[in-house]
Amino acid sequence: MNTEAVPSPRARVVSGMRPTGALHLGHYHGALKNWLRLQATHDCFFFVADWHALTTHYEQREDLEKNVYDMVVDWLAAGIDPERVTLFIQSRMPEHAELFALLAMSTPTSWLERIPSYKDQIDKNRELATYGFLGYPLLQAADILIYKAAQVPVGEDQAAHVEVTREVARRFNRVYERPVFPEPQALLTETARLPGLDGHKMSKSAGNAVAMRDAPEVVEQKIRTMPTDPQRVRRVDAGDPARCPVWPLHRLYTDEATRAGLEQSCRSAGIGCLDCKQPLIEAIQREQAPWRERADDYLANPKQVHWILELGTERARAVARKTLREVRAAIGLNY
Amino acid sequence: MNTEAVPSPRARVVSGMRPTGALHLGHYHGALKNWLRLQATHDCFFFVADWHALTTHYEQREDLEKNVYDMVVDWLAAGIDPERVTLFIQSRMPEHAELFALLAMSTPTSWLERIPSYKDQIDKNRELATYGFLGYPLLQAADILIYKAAQVPVGEDQAAHVEVTREVARRFNRVYERPVFPEPQALLTETARLPGLDGHKMSKSAGNAVAMRDAPEVVEQKIRTMPTDPQRVRRVDAGDPARCPVWPLHRLYTDEATRAGLEQSCRSAGIGCLDCKQPLIEAIQREQAPWRERADDYLANPKQVHWILELGTERARAVARKTLREVRAAIGLNY
Repeated sequence: MNTEAVPSPRARVVSGMRPTGALHLGHYHGALKNWLRLQATHDCFFFVADWHALTTHYEQREDLEKNVYDMVVDWLAAGIDPERVTLFIQSRMPEHAELFALLAMSTPTSWLERIPSYKDQIDKNRELATYGFLGYPLLQAADILIYKAAQVPVGEDQAAHVEVTREVARRFNRVYERPVFPEPQALLTETARLPGLDGHKMSKSAGNAVAMRDAPEVVEQKIRTMPTDPQRVRRVDAGDPARCPVWPLHRLYTDEATRAGLEQSCRSAGIGCLDCKQPLIEAIQREQAPWRERADDYLANPKQVHWILELGTERARAVARKTLREVRAAIGLNY
Repeated sequence: MNTEAVPSPRARVVSGMRPTGALHLGHYHGALKNWLRLQATHDCFFFVADWHALTTHYEQREDLEKNVYDMVVDWLAAGIDPERVTLFIQSRMPEHAELFALLAMSTPTSWLERIPSYKDQIDKNRELATYGFLGYPLLQAADILIYKAAQVPVGEDQAAHVEVTREVARRFNRVYERPVFPEPQALLTETARLPGLDGHKMSKSAGNAVAMRDAPEVVEQKIRTMPTDPQRVRRVDAGDPARCPVWPLHRLYTDEATRAGLEQSCRSAGIGCLDCKQPLIEAIQREQAPWRERADDYLANPKQVHWILELGTERARAVARKTLREVRAAIGLNY
């Protein structure tokens, strides 16, 4: 375990998640599982990116507070260990905003405009053409650089954002002639993309998600009513797993031997779809059991979650303030 | 005098000045004299806009600290009363940066791009095409709105900036459905534009300035060597005040009766240029005497200036934090 007195020799990683509320299995397999691996090997700073949520959804914010706490409970439920990891909320850190404003002075607007996803997104939605949305990768750079992260876990589609962070760091160091910021490395992570109940991308708004904390009977109900191979109309028809939306879930949840048996029985119409779904239902329920147990503890004692975030915020703030002092000194603002 | 316990019934005014170092007579007549008038009638928040200096001069910052303190000493020397006015340094207020980041989320980039001076300036200097320079009017809006200023003193060329501040306030209030920000009024001020020693705009870099705290003998020397009407080559030639760079200074410093006499004597070659300059030299020296006296007190005790700024910063911070709490509550970030 990490103590504050002894500097950690583990490489620091910074990663944020937008407060989407209660997480689903797609979030777990796509991101949270990776955080669990990282907490064993890295000095992790994980934060609720609530300001970032505003860059794209400033008009939808009714349940922001509930969404923040539901998500953090899911982090903790999944096994994120607040003793090993620094957990905090971005909007509680004005230091990020200060660094954002200072980095803005030496960052060409063109670096932000040329991010591939930027033009696509504002072409689709003119409401996004705000100064905040344009500056979103720069705010992200501030989030990362203020902790001098060595690595940033990213999916392939975010590699461009880390590249901007590296450029911003490089330019700051050159303009102000001090090596204040290390250039963080992108830590490309193999994450599983879990399809939703209808075979499309799992998302709460699409109504095709299994929540991390869905009750066992809800999971059973959701999986039992999932569509299967559309060409297997009757029980006696042979099925094809390649056409079945249930199959990708089996790939993630079911061991290879069992899966081989299921595949054969499906192709030969030896089992019905509900037979095939049963081991999947049980595997998901098994995975969820410890999450539910941990979450119940935290939900019984919500003050504890506040305390964890309070402590994490203090820890993060100490690091952030130290970096800001160096930044101000480099610029000449340390009076 | 204002006390913290009783809310002031005076309208609040917010104004900043970039830390250009020791001020010259152009600054005094163009801005500071107006601040002196305002402090008698308004609840004034005057600040050192050191972040703004970085939006255009992030690479020239060697003497930032000296420039800040030299300028504040000149404010105090001119008679700005720290008991009546809240004086502070922008870079000591991370609250401005936080509001800047939050306002960014709901502010269209196009509002910033269309400010008349923006395109002109980046066309002249590509180094200015930074995200920070683009966002400069938004940072200014944050500077003003965080204190809920009722009025902003501006010259005519800055009216567009106040208009953006009003639009930003209006849009925030509408998007988040709470009247958090009053729309500040532009307080158009008649300020005198004082030409420099060569007849062009007075500026330190042009070497044509009289500093507020130039010693009497320096002032004498500078005015004595000023060029006059170029067509009055010999003492016996008649002069024309309309062609003489000294004349606009007389307009500001010399009473009408004396000026009428000087004009007549110039046109009739009744006096020489040094005769004409003598009352001007004395008038400037007279104006400077109390400044020098006050400045000497502060320079003998530099800690006092630090304390004044410290107290002002605390006063400003209390107001800024209160506004930020309302802003966070309106957005839904008050957890």
